[in-house]
Amino acid sequence: MTGLGVTAPAGFRAGAATAGLKPSGRPDVALLVNDGPLDAVAAVFTANRARAHPVLWSEQVVRSGSARAVAVNAGNANCYTGPDGFLVTHRTAEHVAGLLGTADREVGGGDVVVCSTGIIGVPLDTATVLAGMSAAAADLGDDDAHALAAATAVMTTDTRAKQAVRTADGWTVGGMAKGAGMLAPGLATMLVHLTTDAVLDAAVLDAALRAATRVTFDRLDSDGCMSTNDTVTLMASGAGGVTPDQAAFTAVLTDLCHDLAMQLLSDAEGAEHDVAIRVVHAATEDDGVEVGRAIARSALFKTAIFGRDPNWGRILAAVGTTAAAFDPLEVDVSVNGVQVCRAGGPGEDRAGVDLSGREVTVLVDLHAGDAEATVWTNDLTHAYVHENSAYTT
Amino acid sequence: MTGLGVTAPAGFRAGAATAGLKPSGRPDVALLVNDGPLDAVAAVFTANRARAHPVLWSEQVVRSGSARAVAVNAGNANCYTGPDGFLVTHRTAEHVAGLLGTADREVGGGDVVVCSTGIIGVPLDTATVLAGMSAAAADLGDDDAHALAAATAVMTTDTRAKQAVRTADGWTVGGMAKGAGMLAPGLATMLVHLTTDAVLDAAVLDAALRAATRVTFDRLDSDGCMSTNDTVTLMASGAGGVTPDQAAFTAVLTDLCHDLAMQLLSDAEGAEHDVAIRVVHAATEDDGVEVGRAIARSALFKTAIFGRDPNWGRILAAVGTTAAAFDPLEVDVSVNGVQVCRAGGPGEDRAGVDLSGREVTVLVDLHAGDAEATVWTNDLTHAYVHENSAYTT
Repeated sequence: MTGLGVTAPAGFRAGAATAGLKPSGRPDVALLVNDGPLDAVAAVFTANRARAHPVLWSEQVVRSGSARAVAVNAGNANCYTGPDGFLVTHRTAEHVAGLLGTADREVGGGDVVVCSTGIIGVPLDTATVLAGMSAAAADLGDDDAHALAAATAVMTTDTRAKQAVRTADGWTVGGMAKGAGMLAPGLATMLVHLTTDAVLDAAVLDAALRAATRVTFDRLDSDGCMSTNDTVTLMASGAGGVTPDQAAFTAVLTDLCHDLAMQLLSDAEGAEHDVAIRVVHAATEDDGVEVGRAIARSALFKTAIFGRDPNWGRILAAVGTTAAAFDPLEVDVSVNGVQVCRAGGPGEDRAGVDLSGREVTVLVDLHAGDAEATVWTNDLTHAYVHENSAYTT
Repeated sequence: MTGLGVTAPAGFRAGAATAGLKPSGRPDVALLVNDGPLDAVAAVFTANRARAHPVLWSEQVVRSGSARAVAVNAGNANCYTGPDGFLVTHRTAEHVAGLLGTADREVGGGDVVVCSTGIIGVPLDTATVLAGMSAAAADLGDDDAHALAAATAVMTTDTRAKQAVRTADGWTVGGMAKGAGMLAPGLATMLVHLTTDAVLDAAVLDAALRAATRVTFDRLDSDGCMSTNDTVTLMASGAGGVTPDQAAFTAVLTDLCHDLAMQLLSDAEGAEHDVAIRVVHAATEDDGVEVGRAIARSALFKTAIFGRDPNWGRILAAVGTTAAAFDPLEVDVSVNGVQVCRAGGPGEDRAGVDLSGREVTVLVDLHAGDAEATVWTNDLTHAYVHENSAYTT
């Protein structure tokens, strides 16, 4: 009976529709409804200081710890659209609340998280998005087909829908994600919506979500560009009637977030390689993350990986731009298991490194302590340049 | 009588030769000799913590404030080459000192600045580089042909030699530069050698050089990658017999450095656009630089410029990643004179922006103060990806 996405946990329905926001004419709005009995919610948002209107709105919604729905549109980010943009978000929330409220379960605008993704700086038409939300509300269902339809409607340059589910002792966590470019720290350009039927309050959800995103989505750095719209929500319906141990819930949630993060990585715009940069023996975890990010953001490293060249000099040049503790004469670097740099000098023959596959692991040993961290990135390819120069997104 | 490069100021000779370090078989070593009477020197080096052996050596040389020659090899950066790499640099300096010393003018190894550029992590053969230096020393001359030969020998992926000269009241400044990739802050991947026949001591040279590089080379951020070998030297021969006013000298030196920086920008690997990002009404100059750099390093902005798309949303998304003082609802952005974003919302029609030419100016008005700064960058193109994926450098 386990489903495939956000409707796998009991108490959730999803719907999708075509409002007309995507040039392709594909479905572009999605609704995710928590039917309770609980309405607990937590969320994390982009660290970008230029935050889109739906982010500004949704930050206020989740502050109360409760929400009953998430309304998403793709095709337009409603960011840098002037003061009117906030009104569009506000009216979307009020409209969805009106569509979902019943005598048994009242819904106000302040119970509706709103997310938008797509082009920045172009006004989002109110009538278009409201009509789309009406159609999505008429389509709600709790089966796999509805979960997939919602996961598909939120796609922008994604080539496939991204869903994941984990089931434990009497409770389930489900999720959907979108994002293929602008993947960077402080959250990638992603919208991620997570659901659970566990009985958990907002404070526990918040702690678990922050712990999970810190080591998954926050360590995805596909192209160094931080989005204005990133949002990850986690809603609990309590419909399963089971209250899990907090540590167990966090572990399962982290595993599910890792799954979705790897799906984002493998569908990144134009990428031909998925690269895990594992930094070990760092003085602190922060040092490990800083070193991993510096490598992940080096255009020269990323083009070398595209060219199947284990150019460790470019890796060490990137490490040298950080403030992390390390001695340049002690660093070791392995690429796909071959230690091409040993103690800051040439190691094994780089010709022995096989970069023909999609998966690449770079292991950097700083010899500076006991901490470690992994950052994931992609290569920089002709297809990335093409996709991001030929299309306005 | 004004020359075209480093030998334009009186008291300098240059030479070049082919040691065999470039796969192309082109000239790859250059010598620049200060015949005095002064031997004052100043230099700035990469801020990368992973510094090449010649940088470690040359930092010590210039500490004394005096140097009589600069010995350069291209084709191999002598970086991350293990402890033997430092010995190669040291022996190069001693060898060049032996070649240049005369009874009238003794030269020690400690008088020779050494610079290397090229591949990282591959041992540099001592005999090869020493033979090349001997040949270059046998070729020394003070005419334009010798200056051009030296400027050509230091090229790596550069497509043309870069030289500049400025003449003032009785004194002259000349320079040569190389660098086409890994152009980023804390100096770009560049070797720049400047000469003057003015009578100036090392302290004045140092102050003038730091003032000039701070607003020129340090604000060039072609691809966000910081080199391990960047070096800018300034030698004064005093052969002109004139001591300029320090402020006047700094102004002329800055103008010459700007000229060379723009030559580096226009020859950056694979670039089709040269982009000046001018940030005005910043709270501080540092804020302006931070904002300019953030835009310059956005892969999405850079690919948009390549695609001739004035995508100001990507510009504001980059501004939002900084700690600079600004209100997202007050920012204006113009691209090539068209104010496409006004007060954080859509401005004039972006269709009016002409990006068909090579020169692009992005003007960001933060409305936060009276400071300003300009950062220069390039677009991210298919040719950049090709050049940096197909070749090991």
